[in-house]
Amino acid sequence: MKYPGGVVKEKVQTDNISHINYTGRGMGLESDLNVTNEYYREKDLAYIYKKPTPIKLVKVDYKKGKINEAYFDMPSTTDYNGLYKGKYIDFEAKETTSLTSFPLANIHEHQLKHLENIYRHKGIAFLIIRFTRLEETYILMEKDLLDFLKNNKRKSIPTSYFKKKGLKIKTGYAPRLDYLSVLEENGGI
Amino acid sequence: MKYPGGVVKEKVQTDNISHINYTGRGMGLESDLNVTNEYYREKDLAYIYKKPTPIKLVKVDYKKGKINEAYFDMPSTTDYNGLYKGKYIDFEAKETTSLTSFPLANIHEHQLKHLENIYRHKGIAFLIIRFTRLEETYILMEKDLLDFLKNNKRKSIPTSYFKKKGLKIKTGYAPRLDYLSVLEENGGI
Repeated sequence: MKYPGGVVKEKVQTDNISHINYTGRGMGLESDLNVTNEYYREKDLAYIYKKPTPIKLVKVDYKKGKINEAYFDMPSTTDYNGLYKGKYIDFEAKETTSLTSFPLANIHEHQLKHLENIYRHKGIAFLIIRFTRLEETYILMEKDLLDFLKNNKRKSIPTSYFKKKGLKIKTGYAPRLDYLSVLEENGGI
Repeated sequence: MKYPGGVVKEKVQTDNISHINYTGRGMGLESDLNVTNEYYREKDLAYIYKKPTPIKLVKVDYKKGKINEAYFDMPSTTDYNGLYKGKYIDFEAKETTSLTSFPLANIHEHQLKHLENIYRHKGIAFLIIRFTRLEETYILMEKDLLDFLKNNKRKSIPTSYFKKKGLKIKTGYAPRLDYLSVLEENGGI
């Protein structure tokens, strides 16, 4: 099980060089998105936030405002949503260490359903997927995700599909991961 | 201090009848909004969710998925947002036991700023305020909230302003608090 906010350090041998890969929730991508969204807010371009991790409270000392026992809860929606130029933006972001495909098991069934609902109701819905070992990050619009799910029985989306249908996001300095510009340039918004 | 999710039971004497009022975060209004948003989702009308309460984790046993020490964190945005007919919806909901005015201290400064940002970027931003002892619930559109803040030095919004500018929401059976219909009927959307 992967816990939100938890970082699992995993050693991967590549060409005899030992790398540390951050799996679990994907702190690298998450951190990139957080600073990017901060940049958008500072420049008054967009108001997109990461939702807090849902927590199930068990023992709380309300007088001290202290939580003594709690558990991570299942998220019912995606991690990120917000507003850009009057448009509702909604996406889920995930990293994978796979070189060949993105395993769909990384996204909960109800999160997929949520993205579909958003798409049907004219929101801008998409995935941001990073292949950490390929050092490539893609936007996959909900329309293309739905097409894939409709036409494939596969439990994972091959990198070839991202290369064909995905919108590649280059990593920059500021903003670090300018996904809104990529959406604008490619008719995603 | 008022803790998210915490319910403070307060006895109020009214005409010699003892009532229990739920103050703190306002479980009555929160519960009404939760079942209303569930209704909207079930009917495939709108996808509006309450954001999880932000929690600052201190001691976590990731192996067990158990949080052993954590604290309530300051929310950086409003509690509710989502999508309705392609429109970005964003609001904060609060209860007050006051008979005469809504104290603005109940809303954080950065939440007011957030609502202003959403309004400027063409989202649908508003407050939902319930006067529990008057048994009246109003929508106050961000435009009218900004007008009030611009023209008044007062630290609270009098009920007369809600009666004049607010949109009254009647409590029903299903949906329990049909704020989207009220917005539709009054040009709020």
